[in-house]
Amino acid sequence: MIEPVVLKGFRDSLPKEEIPKRMIMSILEGVFTSYGFSPIDTPVLEYSSILLGKGGGETDKQVFSFLDNGGREVSMRFDLTVPFARFLASHLSEVALPFKRYHINKVWRGEKPQKGRYREFIQCDFDIVGDDSALSDSEILSVMNTSFTSLIKSGFTFHISHRGLLNYFLSSLDLTDKAEDILRLIDKKRKIKEEELIAELNEITQSLDKTNKILLFISPDENKTFLETLSSLEELSGGESEGSKRLRDVYAILEETGIDKHFVLDPSITRGLDYYTGLVYETFLDDLPSIGSVCSGGRYNNLASLYTKEVLPGVGSSIGLDRLMAALVELKSPLLENLSSADILIENIDESDGKTLNVATLLRSNGLKCDIFYEKNAKAKKLYDYAEKNSIPYLLFIQKDGLKLKDLKTRETVSNITLEEVVERIKA
Amino acid sequence: MIEPVVLKGFRDSLPKEEIPKRMIMSILEGVFTSYGFSPIDTPVLEYSSILLGKGGGETDKQVFSFLDNGGREVSMRFDLTVPFARFLASHLSEVALPFKRYHINKVWRGEKPQKGRYREFIQCDFDIVGDDSALSDSEILSVMNTSFTSLIKSGFTFHISHRGLLNYFLSSLDLTDKAEDILRLIDKKRKIKEEELIAELNEITQSLDKTNKILLFISPDENKTFLETLSSLEELSGGESEGSKRLRDVYAILEETGIDKHFVLDPSITRGLDYYTGLVYETFLDDLPSIGSVCSGGRYNNLASLYTKEVLPGVGSSIGLDRLMAALVELKSPLLENLSSADILIENIDESDGKTLNVATLLRSNGLKCDIFYEKNAKAKKLYDYAEKNSIPYLLFIQKDGLKLKDLKTRETVSNITLEEVVERIKA
Repeated sequence: MIEPVVLKGFRDSLPKEEIPKRMIMSILEGVFTSYGFSPIDTPVLEYSSILLGKGGGETDKQVFSFLDNGGREVSMRFDLTVPFARFLASHLSEVALPFKRYHINKVWRGEKPQKGRYREFIQCDFDIVGDDSALSDSEILSVMNTSFTSLIKSGFTFHISHRGLLNYFLSSLDLTDKAEDILRLIDKKRKIKEEELIAELNEITQSLDKTNKILLFISPDENKTFLETLSSLEELSGGESEGSKRLRDVYAILEETGIDKHFVLDPSITRGLDYYTGLVYETFLDDLPSIGSVCSGGRYNNLASLYTKEVLPGVGSSIGLDRLMAALVELKSPLLENLSSADILIENIDESDGKTLNVATLLRSNGLKCDIFYEKNAKAKKLYDYAEKNSIPYLLFIQKDGLKLKDLKTRETVSNITLEEVVERIKA
Repeated sequence: MIEPVVLKGFRDSLPKEEIPKRMIMSILEGVFTSYGFSPIDTPVLEYSSILLGKGGGETDKQVFSFLDNGGREVSMRFDLTVPFARFLASHLSEVALPFKRYHINKVWRGEKPQKGRYREFIQCDFDIVGDDSALSDSEILSVMNTSFTSLIKSGFTFHISHRGLLNYFLSSLDLTDKAEDILRLIDKKRKIKEEELIAELNEITQSLDKTNKILLFISPDENKTFLETLSSLEELSGGESEGSKRLRDVYAILEETGIDKHFVLDPSITRGLDYYTGLVYETFLDDLPSIGSVCSGGRYNNLASLYTKEVLPGVGSSIGLDRLMAALVELKSPLLENLSSADILIENIDESDGKTLNVATLLRSNGLKCDIFYEKNAKAKKLYDYAEKNSIPYLLFIQKDGLKLKDLKTRETVSNITLEEVVERIKA
């Protein structure tokens, strides 16, 4: 006998998790396609040199890498962005630019497993490539806004900033050559203690004054509006910059389309990753700040430069589905309540299986999800247990004198009901 | 620069492939859930000992196996059946029996890549576990029938048989101890030449007479009905058997529910795999016999015996999505024609992006998939090219004197159209 265990950091998805997960993916897919985004998929396995961007040899500890049976160095994808960059380089002549794609699928990272962190998880990415306008920036933000409105109605805030804004400010402090280190440090602001942040900033800037100015820059007055904050940030950096102009243009569009209320300007958002060059954003849930960002992204000017000479500016965002699901559980979202495997369960008491099946077929062809309890003349308790475990709300008995419907929520029973009435009642 | 290539036997899925693939998965998911099946998922990586059913050491050449960073022997799943058996053993107390699950996802096999064969492909599995009745057998067959009716209307035939039928016949020939070899050989009947089959059979049976009897048994008269064939097979084996009785019961249900016409009794169907113990079946497309079976399965009496003492009889089936997609291409299926990334493309000529976006928002909230061409005042050719590459059927121009809609199929243009009329026209 082999013990049926799964690997550390991996997990099964039972119907009670998989049914809502698929529903949420379907809601997101509905939003993405309504904006004209197209789905793609890429292989789970790619050459390590492609995913890791180097010639091989030493591989990243966080990546599942191995030699395949043909002796090739291969890796499992650890995000959907790098495969997308490779995909673009492979298929540039086959797609129309701007190319708007979404990709919902699994990725793997060998991170230390901890609460809410898994080695296998699902990302939902959407990107617009081939356009560098405030309009495509705001389209991505609009997709985010519509997605979260569809999922949780309210209680979410998009924190947006622009890499250029902070860079321009740092150049005014003569810290351009240390910008990358500072950006990466600020990115950790929410995860480390303030003393630690200050100490590390001091170490980089070697100046208490500059450290204080940076701290002031990344902690704006929360009572100010987006545009007031933007103006004061411009003041601190010595005037308007490309970054601040773009933020102003994007915000104008958000206002014009009436979706500005969920957006705040937050100069502490930098996104640690190298490839971002413009707008950057993270999404926090008002009631669950500790869970961290559930949707992040930004603008990159040259994503596919490792694989092609073509310059491809783009902007995109990624929703971490597993973290989002965990949040919906905490928020007691009604989306997680619908776990029914079927709308109705039919008892199989008839002598001939055919009659039961024909009733099922009729209900199914009327759009109901219909299950049958196969055991004939089973005890009522068995039927109720089965219906309860599968969250099936109705039970149908096929009796000699007609059909009997039992509503398992209200415990109400209707005898001599017709199939048409059953359909009508359940669909109501 | 790194050359953007994918691994041999792997491939990208572009929107023109991914859009219909997702539609087909969604049709199948609709059928499965209408029968009360629930979705599950399992990890892509599992302990090699679990997937390969042995203590480790030598691994199967066809399986992607490796040592992870923690030194564990792990493998990528090569089917959805073995993980399902492990899943059942892990979660027996959490699911209600009978358990009806579906699982649509990728599996990996290091097979030699050849036309239509890939190392990464999608399986669509559905199984009923915890019931050993003709009713659950026929439910699986009914799901298959509804699935193929939904996908291609007609032109498919389910070839069904029963392991017990052939075994009973072989015991009458005193060949029980060679039954496994013979079953596996017969399973290859469609793939090898007749001379080869005869030679190999002779080698096993060591008797021309027995070989001839087997050949006669597995090649019934095609003009006979299902029940006539069943009777003559019973005659050849010396009477009724458990297997022939079950086939009769199953066929009675198919007849009673009016779905018998796509089913033939084919005693040459054996399914090579060890775990089948009862009903077995394959599905062939009438116009594409050479493509092989697109949906296969059978009954197994003890699937999870490697991982639990609990005896779990089940019956299930698996659709090979990639082979099915290839078939739909050959059959010029209308399902593959709908490749639109959006219903309508809006030109962005307005001075303010907001106006364009507000028109888009309105169309989207009315259920239309709406894309925007971001570049302002772009040349008409660019717009047409973009719409054509994305199969978008309508173009909307926002002009000073009102909206103008262009139907790109008929080339008809309607000026001064209202948004309500646009929605009505496209939804019609």
